[in-house]
Amino acid sequence: MATLLDTINDPADLRKLPRAQLKPLAEELRAFVLDSVSRTGGHLSSNLGTVELTIALHYVFNTPYDRVVWDVGHQTYPHKILTGRRERMGTLRQLGGVSGFPVRSESPYDNFGTAHSSTSISAALGMAMAAKQKGEDRKAIAIIGDGAMSAGMAFEALNNAGVAECDLLVILNDNDMSISPPVGALNRYLAQLMSGQFYAAAKNVGKNVLKVAPPLFELARRLEEGAKGLVVPATLFEKFGFNYIGPIDGHDLDSLIPTLENIRQLKGPQFLHVVTKKGQGYKLAEADPVAYHGPGKFDPAVGLTKPSAPSKPTFTQVFGQWLCDMAAHDARLVGITPAMREGSGMVEFEKMFPTRYFDVGIAEQHAVTFAAGMACEGMKPVVAIYSTFLQRGYDQLVHDVALQNLPVVFALDRAGIVGADGPTHAGAYDIPYLRCIPNMGIACPADENECRKLLTAAFRQDHPVAVRYPRGAGAGVAVEPGLDALPYGKGEIRRERAGMADGAPRGVAILAFGTLLYPALAAAERLGATVVNMRWAKPLDTELLAQVASRHEALVTLEEGAVMGGAGSAVGEALQAAGIVMPLLQLGLRDEFTPHGDPARVLAMQGLDAAGIEASIRTRFGELVDRAAPPSLKVVG
Amino acid sequence: MATLLDTINDPADLRKLPRAQLKPLAEELRAFVLDSVSRTGGHLSSNLGTVELTIALHYVFNTPYDRVVWDVGHQTYPHKILTGRRERMGTLRQLGGVSGFPVRSESPYDNFGTAHSSTSISAALGMAMAAKQKGEDRKAIAIIGDGAMSAGMAFEALNNAGVAECDLLVILNDNDMSISPPVGALNRYLAQLMSGQFYAAAKNVGKNVLKVAPPLFELARRLEEGAKGLVVPATLFEKFGFNYIGPIDGHDLDSLIPTLENIRQLKGPQFLHVVTKKGQGYKLAEADPVAYHGPGKFDPAVGLTKPSAPSKPTFTQVFGQWLCDMAAHDARLVGITPAMREGSGMVEFEKMFPTRYFDVGIAEQHAVTFAAGMACEGMKPVVAIYSTFLQRGYDQLVHDVALQNLPVVFALDRAGIVGADGPTHAGAYDIPYLRCIPNMGIACPADENECRKLLTAAFRQDHPVAVRYPRGAGAGVAVEPGLDALPYGKGEIRRERAGMADGAPRGVAILAFGTLLYPALAAAERLGATVVNMRWAKPLDTELLAQVASRHEALVTLEEGAVMGGAGSAVGEALQAAGIVMPLLQLGLRDEFTPHGDPARVLAMQGLDAAGIEASIRTRFGELVDRAAPPSLKVVG
Repeated sequence: MATLLDTINDPADLRKLPRAQLKPLAEELRAFVLDSVSRTGGHLSSNLGTVELTIALHYVFNTPYDRVVWDVGHQTYPHKILTGRRERMGTLRQLGGVSGFPVRSESPYDNFGTAHSSTSISAALGMAMAAKQKGEDRKAIAIIGDGAMSAGMAFEALNNAGVAECDLLVILNDNDMSISPPVGALNRYLAQLMSGQFYAAAKNVGKNVLKVAPPLFELARRLEEGAKGLVVPATLFEKFGFNYIGPIDGHDLDSLIPTLENIRQLKGPQFLHVVTKKGQGYKLAEADPVAYHGPGKFDPAVGLTKPSAPSKPTFTQVFGQWLCDMAAHDARLVGITPAMREGSGMVEFEKMFPTRYFDVGIAEQHAVTFAAGMACEGMKPVVAIYSTFLQRGYDQLVHDVALQNLPVVFALDRAGIVGADGPTHAGAYDIPYLRCIPNMGIACPADENECRKLLTAAFRQDHPVAVRYPRGAGAGVAVEPGLDALPYGKGEIRRERAGMADGAPRGVAILAFGTLLYPALAAAERLGATVVNMRWAKPLDTELLAQVASRHEALVTLEEGAVMGGAGSAVGEALQAAGIVMPLLQLGLRDEFTPHGDPARVLAMQGLDAAGIEASIRTRFGELVDRAAPPSLKVVG
Repeated sequence: MATLLDTINDPADLRKLPRAQLKPLAEELRAFVLDSVSRTGGHLSSNLGTVELTIALHYVFNTPYDRVVWDVGHQTYPHKILTGRRERMGTLRQLGGVSGFPVRSESPYDNFGTAHSSTSISAALGMAMAAKQKGEDRKAIAIIGDGAMSAGMAFEALNNAGVAECDLLVILNDNDMSISPPVGALNRYLAQLMSGQFYAAAKNVGKNVLKVAPPLFELARRLEEGAKGLVVPATLFEKFGFNYIGPIDGHDLDSLIPTLENIRQLKGPQFLHVVTKKGQGYKLAEADPVAYHGPGKFDPAVGLTKPSAPSKPTFTQVFGQWLCDMAAHDARLVGITPAMREGSGMVEFEKMFPTRYFDVGIAEQHAVTFAAGMACEGMKPVVAIYSTFLQRGYDQLVHDVALQNLPVVFALDRAGIVGADGPTHAGAYDIPYLRCIPNMGIACPADENECRKLLTAAFRQDHPVAVRYPRGAGAGVAVEPGLDALPYGKGEIRRERAGMADGAPRGVAILAFGTLLYPALAAAERLGATVVNMRWAKPLDTELLAQVASRHEALVTLEEGAVMGGAGSAVGEALQAAGIVMPLLQLGLRDEFTPHGDPARVLAMQGLDAAGIEASIRTRFGELVDRAAPPSLKVVG
């Protein structure tokens, strides 16, 4: 049976529907999202929360002529479904399939690519100001969550937009009421808005657009929690120059649509406060929006189930355990996260050491300098941050931590290929952008046990050190429980080619930085090559390097990161500085953004699986390696 | 005659003075600052504005046990003078002398190094939370200007601090009323606070500390401008969880000291709003605080005078002229600056194209994504930003500009050694941190004329390109007026060693990136070396590189930037990728932070003047170069 949703191939189709059909459409759309995500995995709670808002936006505004920028963008599945990608949702986040985020090249309705938080107001303001320059009457709309609003970048944009004379609409998608502990004063303030503290001011309602929206006190009853008053005529956002409207119920199309229709007529910066519920309409997700934030595949009738056998621990878990153990051992340790408690493996740490745990909100800049301030006072801060998000705190790392040579440990999760999240989240650049900074150390553990020991090594230094490790599990090496450190700046030879000790330099040595050690070992078996586990991108073990260089005819470097300026580049510099002139093949991520998809396949596409490594080495140094195994054969690893 | 100031060798001496002597001390201190800066050059207006605040802070608080973090830090000359550095102020900003900013290694009273804006609240909060962890009763104080408050980082810190239970005092040093056009909603809001819009609320004064300060209406009369009302009981800052106090007159010790004494007794986050006047007490600076923001040496009795003969144009001026000319030629051009109109040479552009000029405030993150938004709409944004400040917008450059491959031009001023500002401002890392990002181009003009032509080349690309140029003037090459571009990604041979065309590879070729081309040419004269003007760090002119490599026995790369991961590293990678194995000497900035001081001397210390370049090449490749000129002789260049 054809559904309403089947008839919507783009928002023009949607706009032909009578208003009365939007509610049934919302039901269908919500069911489609739930069914789709249960089959592919992906973000669920946030997408169940934006069903009505998405319908209302495309219904009221003339998309894509009017621009819509979705902050973070993982809540855009309803948007994708309504803008011509319904039938492709089964390919979500898979190689060659629909992205989990808006992507400009994927659809003309994806006006701005997002994924990192808090970019939407800046981008939409740029679009609005461009429209003004060009004399176009298009609207620009940013939809931003309350968490994303806590980042400084959103504040910078608000601060700039409030005085700009342009047709910008910022929609605050406030779903704080249903997620884990809110962080920061802004979130507390938003909760106050919702709690009716400003109720007495309702008499001023006439001056804003709400007078034409459905009766306010009707709306009030519909909000389940804490909504004693809905009208806030003099909010913080008005102080920033916006016309503030709300809060309104983001699941009530009878409220959303007239309000948006009215806003559409207004000139100047508008701020609409919409309250939604993460997981709306799926009881299991409503009850635990964190668990259903980004589930894998599941049966909607049953909900999430625990995997029967525990899988290998992830690097994130190895870090989390180390953090607890080191905190128990050293009272100076404090743990800092910019709003990534779960993702960074700090749930247990918070439980065990609540006064030494600091979630500063989505605020990477502040996180890093806050750590610097603590380090000045003799604390030993560990900043847990994804490689891609440290880009947000780069200046603070340079100017506040490294320049002052403060002992801050950066635990860089998601370094390298990240899989389904794709290029926005790739941890590809940290070695180049950290290596050029004086005083920094950079460790690249090859496996879980090394991760723990290199974290300890990093913690024991009196200067900043980053330890970078990839998403997911590693080779499965058992983690020793103690707090032993690996030596600072030292690597090890893991496999020696036959005859290496006979004096004359012969054959190839692979210098692996990080977890690609294991495919390197597999490739080396077939190539008869030496394999060195370098462990540190900075400082480089130049002694070991010189020794290995002297015994081989050619070197190969290997890293899960950009080749340009990376660890292989460091090896090249070190060789030349030592006056060693020899062939060097630098393997790593090419100078291109990697697509989303299964990480193993993406790595293979970059030639960084065992077969690819073997093939690259044979192509370049074929005459120096064993002939036993042609590259077309499958290689274990 | 011994002055009061002569008796103050540290704040303990200050605290022995009776209150009545503080006013005469302030007069002496102000005179000392004026005299000192007129002899050395440096920051003036801001330091004249902080005289009383500095005295009051050290008088009331137990420094250095209580921590003081000065945001930006160029207003700390009074602080330096009162904390044991009075006699060394004649060495200000000179090599080996007192830094123009707080530096932890310079004094125990410099609790946190600053220079980039808006770090102070984060750092002070870190200190306050560390004190809490350690059970220490010290106070942590951040002093931040109204401009710095507009940066997202300050907001992130406020947002986090407002809910933290710790003894943090944020002092807003609000001198907006005396500087060029305020930017952004926050500044407008602060102006409203001052204008008495909230006067009616004064009846609530009893609930905060001001009741014990001097009579409010007495203070009101002392403020010269717009101060109709001084008490604002429910400000934006209170919404962030701070106890807000003020605004008070920051030049009135009778107001400052009792207020600070009272605040000192309070627990939890405090916010003191102090109003000061840039240039206070020196009429010329009061009248034109921008001109006296960072003057060179001058006669205080006369004031600044125009230099009689115009000197060589700076790269900043070359950029400013190009921007106007290109804007006249192409209506798509928009110019964006994060609060650096003067520093980036955009004064004329703003005058000529006011609707296409965007000063977004101290907000580098927003600046970059705002540019991305405009680029999505077909505009051609030029973001003028110092190399060191682009570190603040790094994630936005990666995630919003490069990943979406948007045509944004980054005009990177102050790339390389910056001289008196020192390591906090060094533009040393942009080549490594940009080179690893796909889609980026990086141009390194060798002189003024190339700067203009490479800006044009960058502007004509359909992807992001950075053009990096140093502080100050270059070789003095006349700038051609047209809008001709140099070819994208192509270098040129500037000097060929004798006999280069004879077939057999011989001698050394220097590959220069940027303005070090000129010392390279001078060194090459004495070495008989080839010199290549590479012009682009990315894409590298690999064709030219292969050609030059084939004709020489060794190559030398040269750049005013970090060697690690820099342009020389790119050459190393490109050679190996092409299978060319040959000796390569990579010259540039060493892996250390460079001190403040005369840029020519700092460059020479890094071995990057002509003599140093010659010496390094002789040391490494002595047998390959001409013997005519020993390195000890003076080399022109």
